Amino acid sequence: MSSTREMKLNAFIHPSGHHIASWRHPDAQADAGVNFRHYVELAQTAERAKFDAIFLADTVAMHEGTPESQSRSARYVAQFEPLTLLAGIAAVTSRIGLIATASSTYNEPYHVARKFASLDHISGGRAGWNLVTSATEAEALNFSRDRHLEHGLRYERAREFAEVVTGLWDSFEDDAFLRDKASGRFFDPEKLHVLNHKGAHFQVQGPLNVARAPQGRPVIVQAGSSGPGKKLAAETADVVFTAQQTTEEATTFYAEVRALAAAAGRSPDDVKILPGVSVFVGRTLAEAREKYDELQRLIHPSIGVALLSGMLGHDLSAYDVDGPVPNLPETNDHKSRQALTLAIARRENLTIRGLYEWIAGARGHWTIFGSPKEIADQLQERFEARGADGYNIMPPHLPGGLDDFVELVVPELRRRGLFRTEYEGATLRENLGLPFPRHPASRLSLAAE
Amino acid sequence: MSSTREMKLNAFIHPSGHHIASWRHPDAQADAGVNFRHYVELAQTAERAKFDAIFLADTVAMHEGTPESQSRSARYVAQFEPLTLLAGIAAVTSRIGLIATASSTYNEPYHVARKFASLDHISGGRAGWNLVTSATEAEALNFSRDRHLEHGLRYERAREFAEVVTGLWDSFEDDAFLRDKASGRFFDPEKLHVLNHKGAHFQVQGPLNVARAPQGRPVIVQAGSSGPGKKLAAETADVVFTAQQTTEEATTFYAEVRALAAAAGRSPDDVKILPGVSVFVGRTLAEAREKYDELQRLIHPSIGVALLSGMLGHDLSAYDVDGPVPNLPETNDHKSRQALTLAIARRENLTIRGLYEWIAGARGHWTIFGSPKEIADQLQERFEARGADGYNIMPPHLPGGLDDFVELVVPELRRRGLFRTEYEGATLRENLGLPFPRHPASRLSLAAE
Repeated sequence: MSSTREMKLNAFIHPSGHHIASWRHPDAQADAGVNFRHYVELAQTAERAKFDAIFLADTVAMHEGTPESQSRSARYVAQFEPLTLLAGIAAVTSRIGLIATASSTYNEPYHVARKFASLDHISGGRAGWNLVTSATEAEALNFSRDRHLEHGLRYERAREFAEVVTGLWDSFEDDAFLRDKASGRFFDPEKLHVLNHKGAHFQVQGPLNVARAPQGRPVIVQAGSSGPGKKLAAETADVVFTAQQTTEEATTFYAEVRALAAAAGRSPDDVKILPGVSVFVGRTLAEAREKYDELQRLIHPSIGVALLSGMLGHDLSAYDVDGPVPNLPETNDHKSRQALTLAIARRENLTIRGLYEWIAGARGHWTIFGSPKEIADQLQERFEARGADGYNIMPPHLPGGLDDFVELVVPELRRRGLFRTEYEGATLRENLGLPFPRHPASRLSLAAE
Repeated sequence: MSSTREMKLNAFIHPSGHHIASWRHPDAQADAGVNFRHYVELAQTAERAKFDAIFLADTVAMHEGTPESQSRSARYVAQFEPLTLLAGIAAVTSRIGLIATASSTYNEPYHVARKFASLDHISGGRAGWNLVTSATEAEALNFSRDRHLEHGLRYERAREFAEVVTGLWDSFEDDAFLRDKASGRFFDPEKLHVLNHKGAHFQVQGPLNVARAPQGRPVIVQAGSSGPGKKLAAETADVVFTAQQTTEEATTFYAEVRALAAAAGRSPDDVKILPGVSVFVGRTLAEAREKYDELQRLIHPSIGVALLSGMLGHDLSAYDVDGPVPNLPETNDHKSRQALTLAIARRENLTIRGLYEWIAGARGHWTIFGSPKEIADQLQERFEARGADGYNIMPPHLPGGLDDFVELVVPELRRRGLFRTEYEGATLRENLGLPFPRHPASRLSLAAE
């Protein structure tokens, strides 16, 4: 690590922004979900600003709700599939990292390993995989299942899934391909490694029919904050995406994940912890607040209640929107997110309306307001307190929210020496300051030297 | 159909070409499988020549064989995954169609429907899906199966898979999205159609979380030539890719598929039949033959025998390479391809070496030689005899083989009025002369008028 520690920044992109009502904002791209040009411009903006990566969430179903609430939401209703979208963006960018979410619950590891390795080749080493487990009933029903996997089993499957994917990525050594036209030898058969995985959830023979990726292995991102989620992240992730409200919570989480990584035999510095943050920046704090209020006024109650119901795993539409948030049993869905959301309601003594307004901007992620200096102060404080290695920036509406951050906040971070002025490397892994994952066979041969 | 019937042309691309030894050719791109720029240039060449589409095959495993034979082959060893590759190409082309193969055997219909719909949006209506069934044991072993599905079951599953995919593509009507910022209504809930599919192989609730594709539905391609394959193609495909040696076989197949389409209630003109053809073109026939011989000399016997073993579904490595092709039982793999290949051996009285040399160029596809005029004569004859609506051009080596066809043969076809000088439409479907698939609900409302 260099003596001047710098932040890593990802741009976490929802089609027209993270705020649930973003698509209604006068400056938002309402057709973002089918507008490829919109995404290309966002990626190019992030690349001009030297962001590490753009980051795309995913869910393999439309969100649940009533026809009334569904028809008022733009989120996961109709938008690009992230891997095809990032492959398209790869062709018209050159430095920005490209991180897509793919679920381990309703996918096959061979497909996932192959598509991310392919994206890494297409992009010259800029691919990242956000490994999640699918948490909703609606997703199960699209994949010939009657209900979704129980939380513990999902994480068992996710762990084995990650093991198979990384094993497949190592099917060939980095220098396996000779392509010797004279002798007719295309690759060195000694440098081909057949996986032969036989586990509780998967039997995968391999090899993967893709050459080893330019990054060795694409970057693995994880967002689990529950007990099993944190453990999986500490053991397998290069980047951890997380949500904490306070610096104290953030530093506790940061220390905990690093300790778990060390306990798993990894260098803690090889796990970059990037909390999400929703930024409202204006010339003054009042102007920033007004930007927030403008979006809050656009939330229709039916979609606010539906958003909250989804986050809590319980339908709240029968409750009084101006009454208290009821006590709810633990869900099999997003366990840690439910707990986080209920804790906010109790701490702030919020009604249902108050709580959905609280989460409408960034679904429980840290939300900050202010002038560029005030924003930079808050980001710097948490970064220097070791609550973060950088941030997943969640623009409230797009493209304006990303433009604001890039034009107003990034220069202030640079003035303070907190953010790069040029990319350090050619690959996402190099820019994140992560080591190249040497092939296991080459490690073996070094040990034998 | 216009009075001057014109050919449809696809460029069927294997990384360094279709000939099994292509990667060894002095002008071939040996690292094609990981060279994105190579593919972009091929696609741009095909687009400049006004081809309908580029077409990519796929298999979700490395080909079987001994380490010796595997290490001499460049095919399916290490190459891009087709969907991510085409999404990348979509971003840097504007008119060429983009057809990728995706197997119905080891995929989920929700993923396939979503990715092709996404590619259609990214490309502005240029996506095509080549629906195949997976036919090798090696593929089964990568997907937690002990052996691959029996031929009949594979086709049952493929038929239901296609039904689910097309149903998911119709989740939203074309004009479902209002995006009305003032009222806050994002889509018209009456124009959302939940699939609720419950079949023998799949239970898929839907809806697909992608807007209806610019083409209504991406183009469906199929290559089955067995009984169940032909029936499935006639009932569900927009384009049929096929292999016939003689004009007589081609016209029989052509008439048969059109009759099956009519029997299924479709207009026969809505199924475009594009046989594969491997073209060796030179200034003279002798020069064309020499191009062929140059590649034939580069085939190593171990890879020739492995190629033939794969096509016949039986390991022939223990037989004398200069002895006769043995009698073999019917395979559960590529049924129709096995029969076709054995028929060639018998008809031409070939040894094992003779047979692998015969199929090394294009795996049993029609192979033609000659000057530009002689090539055009042969393509024209079969086209006018109603054995084809056009061709899937299979360049022996790349990029040279495609350049030769574009520079030498395309102008000759144009002189004869057999091929377009400009694209007719903006979408692949329009260029192929296929009707826009109206949404079932809009058909219903028309009928009620």
